[in-house]
Amino acid sequence: MPDPLTDESTCPTATRNGAQALIETASAGGVEVCFANPGTTEMPLVTALDKVPAIRPVLGLFEGVCTGAADGYARIAGKPAMTLLHLGPGFANGIANLHNARRAHSPVLNVVGDHASWHLPYDAPLTSDIQSLATPVSGWVGTVESAAHTSRATVEALAAARTPPGCGATLIVPADFQQETFGEPLTAVPPPPGPGRVVPATVDGIAEKVRRSKHTVVLLGAGGLTERGQRAAQRIARATGATLYSETFPAAAERGGGLPDLDRLPYFPEAAIKALADAETVVLAGALEPVAYFGYSNMPSLLAPPGTVRVLAEPGEDAAQALEELATALGAPLASSDRRPDLPDRSLPTGRLDPAAIGRIVATLLPDNAIVSVEGGTCGYPFFTASAHAARHTTLTNTGGAIGQGLPAALGAAVAAPDRRVIALQSDGSAQYTIQALWTMAREQVSVVTLIASNRRYGILRTELGRHGGSATGSASAALTSLDDPALDWPALAAGYGVPAQRAESGIELIDALTRALVEDGPQLIEMVL
Amino acid sequence: MPDPLTDESTCPTATRNGAQALIETASAGGVEVCFANPGTTEMPLVTALDKVPAIRPVLGLFEGVCTGAADGYARIAGKPAMTLLHLGPGFANGIANLHNARRAHSPVLNVVGDHASWHLPYDAPLTSDIQSLATPVSGWVGTVESAAHTSRATVEALAAARTPPGCGATLIVPADFQQETFGEPLTAVPPPPGPGRVVPATVDGIAEKVRRSKHTVVLLGAGGLTERGQRAAQRIARATGATLYSETFPAAAERGGGLPDLDRLPYFPEAAIKALADAETVVLAGALEPVAYFGYSNMPSLLAPPGTVRVLAEPGEDAAQALEELATALGAPLASSDRRPDLPDRSLPTGRLDPAAIGRIVATLLPDNAIVSVEGGTCGYPFFTASAHAARHTTLTNTGGAIGQGLPAALGAAVAAPDRRVIALQSDGSAQYTIQALWTMAREQVSVVTLIASNRRYGILRTELGRHGGSATGSASAALTSLDDPALDWPALAAGYGVPAQRAESGIELIDALTRALVEDGPQLIEMVL
Repeated sequence: MPDPLTDESTCPTATRNGAQALIETASAGGVEVCFANPGTTEMPLVTALDKVPAIRPVLGLFEGVCTGAADGYARIAGKPAMTLLHLGPGFANGIANLHNARRAHSPVLNVVGDHASWHLPYDAPLTSDIQSLATPVSGWVGTVESAAHTSRATVEALAAARTPPGCGATLIVPADFQQETFGEPLTAVPPPPGPGRVVPATVDGIAEKVRRSKHTVVLLGAGGLTERGQRAAQRIARATGATLYSETFPAAAERGGGLPDLDRLPYFPEAAIKALADAETVVLAGALEPVAYFGYSNMPSLLAPPGTVRVLAEPGEDAAQALEELATALGAPLASSDRRPDLPDRSLPTGRLDPAAIGRIVATLLPDNAIVSVEGGTCGYPFFTASAHAARHTTLTNTGGAIGQGLPAALGAAVAAPDRRVIALQSDGSAQYTIQALWTMAREQVSVVTLIASNRRYGILRTELGRHGGSATGSASAALTSLDDPALDWPALAAGYGVPAQRAESGIELIDALTRALVEDGPQLIEMVL
Repeated sequence: MPDPLTDESTCPTATRNGAQALIETASAGGVEVCFANPGTTEMPLVTALDKVPAIRPVLGLFEGVCTGAADGYARIAGKPAMTLLHLGPGFANGIANLHNARRAHSPVLNVVGDHASWHLPYDAPLTSDIQSLATPVSGWVGTVESAAHTSRATVEALAAARTPPGCGATLIVPADFQQETFGEPLTAVPPPPGPGRVVPATVDGIAEKVRRSKHTVVLLGAGGLTERGQRAAQRIARATGATLYSETFPAAAERGGGLPDLDRLPYFPEAAIKALADAETVVLAGALEPVAYFGYSNMPSLLAPPGTVRVLAEPGEDAAQALEELATALGAPLASSDRRPDLPDRSLPTGRLDPAAIGRIVATLLPDNAIVSVEGGTCGYPFFTASAHAARHTTLTNTGGAIGQGLPAALGAAVAAPDRRVIALQSDGSAQYTIQALWTMAREQVSVVTLIASNRRYGILRTELGRHGGSATGSASAALTSLDDPALDWPALAAGYGVPAQRAESGIELIDALTRALVEDGPQLIEMVL
């Protein structure tokens, strides 16, 4: 009997096992990276990866690193990476970042090994209901039913993941079907569909509504936040006086380098309601209708005035094209040529660090074409405020609110774009959930500079305690919102994972540390003591 | 309007909010500890904890630390701790260790905040299907339907968690019902039921079968692994020639100090089948019928010879009592008085560290009445082999195979038994999944000595690659089973979390380091370089 693991994988009708069929099909479908934390039931897939060098295996020490990296990869590469996770518990460790990926509409191909199909009824210790765990974070869930079925199931999963606006697809592969061999050819992978085209009647109807409105707000998300989308939105704003907002937590937004100085729609509902209060029309271009992040008593869930919302483009439609057509329908002149404005203020804060100072320093030192993965309440908004006049960059934010997203997303973005500098602008609390990402950054030697805003507390929870009429003065509420006692030693943690680190306690120290970090290859970490 | 947060919580008919009702009811039901990683939707519960100092809040930086600690706590305290987790993604981060808790039959009261009930339809970013995520790891899932319902729902959850053999119960509490006030009294908490009593007919039937069998194996689990259960099993063994085994991964097993030198049923199916092959009767006393951990082709799932298995006591029944009755029915004489046997070998290995040397050193230095949380393939069996003649201790193992269990379980055990020394005997790979447990150990100053077997690889996966006919010589399989490049610097990681650490590269260094660690208060870590 031929050893299936040594067959030529390039021969379309070779005998191969199910694991090889899966990996070859994924590769044929354009998958280039596998963020993996495999176990026993994935060993045939690991062995198959040995045979298909076109898919690069990247090990994470924790599954949330893998899924968050696949999300970040998809946002930058515009295509799915594969994750390889171990049964229900391994998948479960990846759910939080798959939740974020779902909200980002990131295409991800999750592959989960399961027990051999004949072993499942015996309820061995690791047996678990993977379907129930996967459904809340997957647009598609399927189970391989035989070795020969593996290739087709992989094609279906990829097709689901790449159907606009994109989703996570989870393919469960029993171990026996990974190992068994078959002789049929692989299923062909169709090219991924492009985004849906917005119909002219929609554009014309919205143009008419905008013309009749005293004030219009255009809320940009997804393709509306590409350079093309923002330029078209700017034409609309200039022609009609409309106000432009970015959705509050975009998956990926171009920024700086002469792009419009968009505000993000505010996080807290009072402020968001105020921002939208005067609008007679709220045009959604790739963004969803704005809703309150959390429900607060005496505060509505929907933030736009009733009856004002018009959908120009759903997240899966071509928002940039639709915005251009809307601009034309509104008679907006083409924009003048792109000129990068001067920075309004080149004098940098050198004294005590605070979030505003950090935002200005990072924005000013940002290299051209950087990617900034922003997570956490401390520095997110201050950086956004400062970054409109920075060099051109792409901002990734935490779309779903499951914290522990920023470091893995930065890792995935760096794998997707090795020629771009990546900065992970992080809060200390949120960085802890997937701190193991530092090790993979060191192993893969990606050029990610991690900036930890170290205020030694869950700042957002202190704010929320106040909104609930409480405070952090009780012993439980103080203990459960504080990260002190002991303070985390970030340079020591970074050293533990093989990442060179510095500590900055003032503006001048941060300027110095970041300047040095940005010229090094490989990962760096800077603790910014607040 | 009175402020519900300042009302006297001791008055049974006081106006209180739903959060207070939950916390007061849990406290009345004997819950003393809350392992928490809360978010915005749990803030009223956090504020309520301020008012009920009988429940001790313990913060984890990652939810898997909280759920694993609740599991370890339950195994030692014999009663549930509460976890407090944030919506679906926060709960998801705790699933892996709830999977282990489910396999350990540990009672756990999971409390998960959700969006305000009226906010759920708007699908805000953190909205998620908590029910679908919770069901696979919960024996009971319920959702609070009003503030007034909170107390009764808490009683139901506690009752489910404590119904033998015990399970995780997950209570979802929308934020509005936490905040709203009501005036009805709290629901009374009934006392927890004891384990089921095995009926005499079952005992007599099994006694008859054992008498007729040439060879009997008694497989002990749950209550069969208490001192009482083991002494009764030893009487049976002496009277009948039966062989005793512990289940492979017990939730908690007494060991050493003169208890029988039980083997654990082997992990790999070939060895387990061999161990059971001669048995005409396999008596289950608190253990489940043995099944292969994973399915391997040409290897059965069921390990005992067909038709041999007899259930003396289910995990929820009083296995110790049943074993005593079986011993009596078999006419086994009462055991002679307990005498601790001399250690067979007091000379300790001083040279190069290997798993056997580590097992002998740890077993020999073990203080009386210690708790040993064992996880990972490297040192688990070698320690078990050496520990039969150690001082009396309790061993906790990873019951469900979701790795990242050992450190949190050690933390929870130490919280449950502050007067006992806890040793976490860990592998480097598995320790990484919930490494944040070190910080909580430092914060709570629990006396846990963490021993990291640092071999810089996923050793079990290398073994499994071999079983699948592969090896780790391919680039993917080498990369995905190696923890080198860079090697983790464990003392640096420990320092980052505030835990004093040492590194041992030889037997003499380990003896020295462990001796010193065991006399210190608070947590310690020793990297054992293999």
